[in-house]
Amino acid sequence: MRFNLLLASLGGVLALPMVAAAPPPSGDILGFTPASSRVQREWENKFRALPSPARMRADMKLLSARPHHVGSPYDKQNAEWILKQFTDAGWDAHIEQFDVLFPTPKQRLVELVAPTHFRAKLQEPPVPGDPTSAQTSEQLPTYNAYSIDGDVTGPLVYVNYGIPADYDDLARRGISVKGAIVIARYGGSWRGIKPKVAAEHGAIGCIIYSDPGDDGYSRGDVFPKGPLRPADGVQRGSVMDMPTYPGDPLTPGVGATKNAKRLPIKDAPTLTKIPVLPISYGDALPLLAAIGGTVAPSSWRGALPITYKIGPGPARVHLVVKSNWDLKPIYDVIGKLQGSSSPDEWVIRGNHHDAWVNGADDPIAGQVALLEEMRAMGALVKQGWRPKRTIIYAAWDGEEPGLLGSTEWAETHADELAQHAVAYLNSDTNGRGYLGVSGSHVLEKFINGVMRDITDPETGASVERRSLARVMERASPAARKALRSREDMHIGALGSGSDYTAFLQHVGVPSMNLGFGGEGEAGVYHSVYDDFYWYTHFSDSSFVYGRALAQTVGTAAMRLADADVIPYDFTDLAETVNGYVGELKALHKGMASEAVEHNRDIADSTFFLTNDPRAPLAIPKPEAAVPDLDFTPLDSAAAALTRAAARYQTAFNQSLDGAATESFVKLNQDLLQSERLLLSDAGLPNRPWFKHLLYAPGYYTGYGVKTIPGVREAIEQKEWSLAGTQISRVAAALDAEAALVDRAATELGH
Amino acid sequence: MRFNLLLASLGGVLALPMVAAAPPPSGDILGFTPASSRVQREWENKFRALPSPARMRADMKLLSARPHHVGSPYDKQNAEWILKQFTDAGWDAHIEQFDVLFPTPKQRLVELVAPTHFRAKLQEPPVPGDPTSAQTSEQLPTYNAYSIDGDVTGPLVYVNYGIPADYDDLARRGISVKGAIVIARYGGSWRGIKPKVAAEHGAIGCIIYSDPGDDGYSRGDVFPKGPLRPADGVQRGSVMDMPTYPGDPLTPGVGATKNAKRLPIKDAPTLTKIPVLPISYGDALPLLAAIGGTVAPSSWRGALPITYKIGPGPARVHLVVKSNWDLKPIYDVIGKLQGSSSPDEWVIRGNHHDAWVNGADDPIAGQVALLEEMRAMGALVKQGWRPKRTIIYAAWDGEEPGLLGSTEWAETHADELAQHAVAYLNSDTNGRGYLGVSGSHVLEKFINGVMRDITDPETGASVERRSLARVMERASPAARKALRSREDMHIGALGSGSDYTAFLQHVGVPSMNLGFGGEGEAGVYHSVYDDFYWYTHFSDSSFVYGRALAQTVGTAAMRLADADVIPYDFTDLAETVNGYVGELKALHKGMASEAVEHNRDIADSTFFLTNDPRAPLAIPKPEAAVPDLDFTPLDSAAAALTRAAARYQTAFNQSLDGAATESFVKLNQDLLQSERLLLSDAGLPNRPWFKHLLYAPGYYTGYGVKTIPGVREAIEQKEWSLAGTQISRVAAALDAEAALVDRAATELGH
Repeated sequence: MRFNLLLASLGGVLALPMVAAAPPPSGDILGFTPASSRVQREWENKFRALPSPARMRADMKLLSARPHHVGSPYDKQNAEWILKQFTDAGWDAHIEQFDVLFPTPKQRLVELVAPTHFRAKLQEPPVPGDPTSAQTSEQLPTYNAYSIDGDVTGPLVYVNYGIPADYDDLARRGISVKGAIVIARYGGSWRGIKPKVAAEHGAIGCIIYSDPGDDGYSRGDVFPKGPLRPADGVQRGSVMDMPTYPGDPLTPGVGATKNAKRLPIKDAPTLTKIPVLPISYGDALPLLAAIGGTVAPSSWRGALPITYKIGPGPARVHLVVKSNWDLKPIYDVIGKLQGSSSPDEWVIRGNHHDAWVNGADDPIAGQVALLEEMRAMGALVKQGWRPKRTIIYAAWDGEEPGLLGSTEWAETHADELAQHAVAYLNSDTNGRGYLGVSGSHVLEKFINGVMRDITDPETGASVERRSLARVMERASPAARKALRSREDMHIGALGSGSDYTAFLQHVGVPSMNLGFGGEGEAGVYHSVYDDFYWYTHFSDSSFVYGRALAQTVGTAAMRLADADVIPYDFTDLAETVNGYVGELKALHKGMASEAVEHNRDIADSTFFLTNDPRAPLAIPKPEAAVPDLDFTPLDSAAAALTRAAARYQTAFNQSLDGAATESFVKLNQDLLQSERLLLSDAGLPNRPWFKHLLYAPGYYTGYGVKTIPGVREAIEQKEWSLAGTQISRVAAALDAEAALVDRAATELGH
Repeated sequence: MRFNLLLASLGGVLALPMVAAAPPPSGDILGFTPASSRVQREWENKFRALPSPARMRADMKLLSARPHHVGSPYDKQNAEWILKQFTDAGWDAHIEQFDVLFPTPKQRLVELVAPTHFRAKLQEPPVPGDPTSAQTSEQLPTYNAYSIDGDVTGPLVYVNYGIPADYDDLARRGISVKGAIVIARYGGSWRGIKPKVAAEHGAIGCIIYSDPGDDGYSRGDVFPKGPLRPADGVQRGSVMDMPTYPGDPLTPGVGATKNAKRLPIKDAPTLTKIPVLPISYGDALPLLAAIGGTVAPSSWRGALPITYKIGPGPARVHLVVKSNWDLKPIYDVIGKLQGSSSPDEWVIRGNHHDAWVNGADDPIAGQVALLEEMRAMGALVKQGWRPKRTIIYAAWDGEEPGLLGSTEWAETHADELAQHAVAYLNSDTNGRGYLGVSGSHVLEKFINGVMRDITDPETGASVERRSLARVMERASPAARKALRSREDMHIGALGSGSDYTAFLQHVGVPSMNLGFGGEGEAGVYHSVYDDFYWYTHFSDSSFVYGRALAQTVGTAAMRLADADVIPYDFTDLAETVNGYVGELKALHKGMASEAVEHNRDIADSTFFLTNDPRAPLAIPKPEAAVPDLDFTPLDSAAAALTRAAARYQTAFNQSLDGAATESFVKLNQDLLQSERLLLSDAGLPNRPWFKHLLYAPGYYTGYGVKTIPGVREAIEQKEWSLAGTQISRVAAALDAEAALVDRAATELGH
């Protein structure tokens, strides 16, 4: 309704040319023989007609009707209801329970004690017209889960986003956070990085707030007039040190089953070192306004009507966090469709069902798509379809606190997954606009094929074409040229932030995360206002993108399950790896010349000569020269992978036409192991849980990916000898991968 | 005092290494024989010891004691007092009067009439502790001079900075300003561009406000606690169409003497086409908050605590401007030291004395340096020094309304200037930090030499070294390398914005603008708070940079007056011109490929595919292909200049050692004409007053320079045939310049 009204009112502007609608799918599907392709297309066409926006709307209304965080009655009720949907649709399903550490707050206080007094509200008020926002008795309070308990008082220091570069800046200004409470704005990194880095620099407490410049009135009208975060809106969220390991802090590497061996809470390394609380910009304003001292540099300034200053003090703050540290049960709903010919090859797809509060967008928008895929496949089974491989659909619990449900499940079933898993497909939130895809690059060509066959509901073009147009629109002329000459759209690499993490980075299952977005604004992330009212007024209110997501991910799952040859492609992987190696070399070279220039500036007194005596900066120390690094092993391994990938692709293209599908059994078993070869048993330096050598969340970015992380982070941290060791390790894995791909080409008779 | 206090309190941070102080000047001075150099250095050393911070402070207190805008009693009183300083110091001085159109407001109104009512204050209140801010009876009201009279009511549209690119953006959003009143923030261009472009697009009125993000609390504490613009602070300023011609609107091209022929006011082309008023951010907040419609894009958002929206409406505004359109007298103070051996070669130096209100920084900070130079030279004359060339010092009136005093004087004396003027040296405001220099590139090498001999008061290093460090600090690695291998620091090109304009761009006198700045913040530009209190609390409070400015410009004037050969260098000019030609080619090439990409995006439906139906944008039209342009004439003329410049430099370097200075008479006469050859009699397209072919203020930027403006603006405006004509014209001038330089080399015997 809103959509049409807006269209009508702006009709004069809107002179849209016609584009050809997405052509009806045709041609062979990657990994299918021509005969199999024809059969598959018939089933897919039936499948894509089934997901229903009306059902998704009803499901969202029900699943988000009450707060359903871990440990809440409605969380369990939702899990049981979801289970019933699976069994009603004919799936073999059950609930798998784990018992995890999940602190919930007993006491929270943020109080300005000098130079004036102010006590933060720490509450998101009910909004008239939005019924679920008034369910205050069931809502989790605003807090950051896995903050340790603490009662601290100290001067306040504004640290911008609170990332390492901000502390470099503070050091040049001679400002220390030792003994201070820092206040950081959300953004610039995953939130858990902020207390981690603050504690490393000696802070005793951490407050995180949503600045209206990043997440509030600056971007548009605030809720309920518009979709943006209102003055009292707070972003809850976990601050567990997930870049060390996600999942239950007490059971690293193993499932948190009833009788699992648990660490004492005091020894759990992923709890914060200092107390943390999130606040709204309404609560932040008096605190920030009370800070004096140095004026914050321009890139540190938000949209509050004040002069942002750094401190420390004269503002002093009293911060208290006390939690209930019980174990809580979590309920993963697991459904299965047994494969007909290759039941030991598993295609897995998941989306969490728990939320911080009502969670209409996060995660129910993705969950309702998953349910429609599940129901549609159930309906196809009744019509006679049967996947060749086993399909497993999972509705995870406990994603919000720390990817608990998916991680504990993947840890519990790690050995089976390593043997059987073909791919893991994830979704989470969903909105309007463009399909965002990140994942393992062996799946890049595959997902491009899927995107070509899905119709974007707003333009009638294919989802791939629309996403490519978005990339083109923003690309440099050189990048546009490169994109035009490339068959596939690039997909991003996965860091962390949702339930694919354990599958990809701990077990080595090729994974993808998919979701629509990029149109419209949102400012209700992890707030009570992320609810049915908000979603149906400001996001995918007609659920057409919910349907598109179900069509996309369901099609992908069916293709992965039915393909004659597992549809991995290694040419895109090899090209991507070569790109990463180039980035590492450029990073190293850039740091080397930066150190030279830095030392030259010291020798030339540049820092002295550009110092303002009324606002003096510390003169930095000289930097050690950056030693050479031998990238030859990586270069030659990447070259070997490139050759093998080309050979395999040729073989693959020539082999599927008219082949007997039985001849691919051994090949598929080999392919199944290809991503596992990219793992290191020892894991990454200082975080053995993370085993993937190509993708990891950054140790100091949190969600943001670091590619070839062992080498990249060693370079970034200037650990040159470690960088050398890691180069060898990655090169060895790539050599092994190249050998497997070469063998696979030979198996195809080339 | 403030300075030392701050240093002490931050002592722990400040670990400054020693840099070698500026070495005592030595070696030959550019344009001087060794013997002349020795004599010159003795006089210069005496000169640089004379300027007195204490006297500058006293002069500033006196000259800024009362409002002294054009037509005010104190403006005349200041002119008479300045004249007395000249005659007391032994100069031959007089006041030269002109009669100019200068409107002052009788009625001003900015009123929100819907959806609620609000009337703007339009007043800068007195600030306790700042005595001159309370002189309300003598202050000019807040207004924009040369706005036409008007009484208009219409819907309000927010147009960001109100530059042409902003209107392109509005067009894509389908928003028209026809019949509307626009509100633009200061910045992004010179202010006069805003009503000009608004009127071109059909607006009926224009409001300009100071956004706190650019000029207010966002950057630091506001006055009187800090130096930044307070909520009620307003930037006055002229909106005369100076890129067409500056000076008295009624006497273009001729002096506004008593009996000059004057245009009727209604025919004066440089008055605005629509009424304009400037307002404070205190007054702007209710207006902007009342605008609805489309949310402004992120780059349009300022620092007010609102959602910036574009409109039009529902805010409706009533705007009234009525002025008194009398002629007012202006008083230029002109002092002269007659040259001993070459009295017909003039070195001119100026700084204005009029202000919008009290004007401590603008222009008195520069004026007090000029007075100290003048007094010091007077003292040297008493000790026996006599410049070889004639030195003319000018304290201009009427700069603020439109460069009136300097323009009318330069127009009146245009023929003499064309015959006699060696250089014009300008200053205006002055602060702490780095010497900023822009000017004619024949003076680039010369001013580098001066800068090497002036000591920066904060670091003890030479002014050149400090400025170079600032450039280095911000340069890319490639740029740093280029800078290190270059003998001279680059100087910028001059657009407009101060009194050099008529000298350089109308008459072709090699000019420079000089002033210190870059440290500390300021938010009192053209406000009542630009006064003695503000300056002595927040700017060059000890006047050591005032002294440095006097030392720099005075040394430059003495060297230009005493040099055996006029110290122009053509190698830096040639290099700079070659750089400009490269820029023009890149601009043309970039526009050509941009048009191709744009049309490709239309063909590929990229605009359609990236359109959000809830916030649709108009699909742009295809662009005409960009034709080839023949840059060969420019290339070959620039190459000829490069060759001639190198030949002249070799001759120059070999000729000054031991030469009889009499032998340079003919050479100097030739050199004197070199900049004049870069003029075009016909002037620039559509603005014949501007005659310089290398430098002009941009027709759509106002102050910002456009180099090789005839060609550059033709390309920017896609007038391809005009671009071709202009290329020929510039090439011909450069060829003539090369011939002159070649002849000069021959005169030196090479």
